[in-house]
Amino acid sequence: MARRRLVYEGKAKILYEGPEPGTLIQHFKDDATAFNAEKRDVIEGKGVLNNRISEHIMSGLNSIGVPTHFIKRLNMREQLVRACEIIPLEVVVRNVAAGSLSKRLGIEEGTALPRPIIEFYYKDDKLGDPMVTEEHILAFNWASQQDVDDIIALALRVNDFLAGMMLGVGIRLVDFKIECGRIYEGDFQRIVVADEISPDSCRLWDLRTGRKLDKDVFRRDLGSLTDAYAEVASRLGIMPRGGSGKTGPQLVH
Amino acid sequence: MARRRLVYEGKAKILYEGPEPGTLIQHFKDDATAFNAEKRDVIEGKGVLNNRISEHIMSGLNSIGVPTHFIKRLNMREQLVRACEIIPLEVVVRNVAAGSLSKRLGIEEGTALPRPIIEFYYKDDKLGDPMVTEEHILAFNWASQQDVDDIIALALRVNDFLAGMMLGVGIRLVDFKIECGRIYEGDFQRIVVADEISPDSCRLWDLRTGRKLDKDVFRRDLGSLTDAYAEVASRLGIMPRGGSGKTGPQLVH
Ligand SMILES: Nc1ncnc2c1ncn2[C@@H]1O[C@H](COP(=O)(O)OP(=O)(O)OP(=O)(O)O)[C@@H](O)[C@H]1O
Ligand SMILES: Nc1ncnc2c1ncn2[C@@H]1O[C@H](COP(=O)(O)OP(=O)(O)OP(=O)(O)O)[C@@H](O)[C@H]1O
Ligand SMILES: [Mg+2]
Ligand SMILES: [Mg+2]
Repeated sequence: MARRRLVYEGKAKILYEGPEPGTLIQHFKDDATAFNAEKRDVIEGKGVLNNRISEHIMSGLNSIGVPTHFIKRLNMREQLVRACEIIPLEVVVRNVAAGSLSKRLGIEEGTALPRPIIEFYYKDDKLGDPMVTEEHILAFNWASQQDVDDIIALALRVNDFLAGMMLGVGIRLVDFKIECGRIYEGDFQRIVVADEISPDSCRLWDLRTGRKLDKDVFRRDLGSLTDAYAEVASRLGIMPRGGSGKTGPQLVH
Repeated sequence: MARRRLVYEGKAKILYEGPEPGTLIQHFKDDATAFNAEKRDVIEGKGVLNNRISEHIMSGLNSIGVPTHFIKRLNMREQLVRACEIIPLEVVVRNVAAGSLSKRLGIEEGTALPRPIIEFYYKDDKLGDPMVTEEHILAFNWASQQDVDDIIALALRVNDFLAGMMLGVGIRLVDFKIECGRIYEGDFQRIVVADEISPDSCRLWDLRTGRKLDKDVFRRDLGSLTDAYAEVASRLGIMPRGGSGKTGPQLVH
């Protein structure tokens, strides 16, 4: 393959120029980071799992008419996506108290929230991704009111879809984070779900045992991260059981 | 005076039962605290100044139809107010970047904001008054959507009024915090501005020199706090110049 132009290397992924204008190749690395990159490790096989799980979720969203950047998976670690203008917000939807919400508001982890709560965090590693409100977003023009309304509508649809998908395989969707971007089509602009949706960006608890099947396994040193992610993939019918380990998970095709 | 029943003693004020049902006496102490009470001191004369300044602002708000709890001043340190059900939020309105906003979002102190920004903090000393959004407020039922809409409308009117009052005497209103409460009248409920509005709860900068005339003088050890507050009172025509000092500020009447 001809040498590709690198567009951006982040903590978990690399973006390369795609084959067509307006496309990018998103490459999933094995790097894991937490606590604003204070904790880091390389976890063999994670990138392969996230590439597959994110493909599964994004193509499911596309199929129900929730626009995403996802076009198709290219290989074990890469997918073709539409390039977009990323809105510098992490959009978090929470169904159950956990993590920073529990800590900040003194609500025990595992407490079901009376309704889904949407939070915005300003994407800026130097500032530690501070929580912000619509007031800040509009005042500093990080997004327009229309963008924010669109993002909230998308986030709630993703929540419904993902909660359903997970519940179907015995997993409780505690919370998740998405990033959104603008795509320009002639005179029009629309907001799509970008980046990834994977156990790196969700909290997923086994419905029966409460076992964590997400990045908290890494954050809190709870065992093998790839075992947890492979469990999610296997339940979703993406990968056969026992797919993790030294040689990396096997692919169905 | 007959012994009064104490209702609540806070960091800066004491509430006593008032003479009529549905009223309270709000007593202004000289105690100053900052950084969630990590820094504390007693500053002679502060309570007298805040009682007078808060009276001036609250009665001005009443006069333009912004409902407040304020009924009348009783003496140097006390005022009669309507008892209300305090909504557990600190409502902050910012016109210029300063304090925690500057720190959290990396915006230099003194930068004029493109538009006023309203923030909510959940009043809970144990949690350090964390910032929250309408999402949290509604999910945990700290206030209803109607309450929040009323609070925002009140906060913006207070901002206009207070910005005008301060600008009239050469002071820039950087930001301020209010508390709101519910008053029940028969079947109806309405939201009023409660607590105090004083240099303890505002950032006030001299328009010409930038001199701080607010609690930051205490927080950042910038000199005499009562000199600064007396300057505000004197400019507002409440107290004669040179009114601070060991014997406490003089009262006009
Ligand atoms: N369709 C897209 N078009 C353009 N940029 C995208 C698209 N999808 C995701 N991105 C961006 O690509 C980067 C993915 O890299 P990665 O997630 O590793 O970054 P990161 O180190 O986590 O940093 P960040 O905090 O920006 O996410 C992110 O900055 C993300 O916002
Ligand atoms: N009209 C009112 N009716 C009932 N409570 C009121 C009214 N106005 C103010 N309060 C409450 O009275 C208390 C005033 O005391 P003070 O400001 O010293 O408390 P504090 O130590 O600052 O604690 P807080 O964090 O609750 O303000 C506050 O709790 C405030 O919410
Ligand atoms: Mg990222
Ligand atoms: Mg108080």
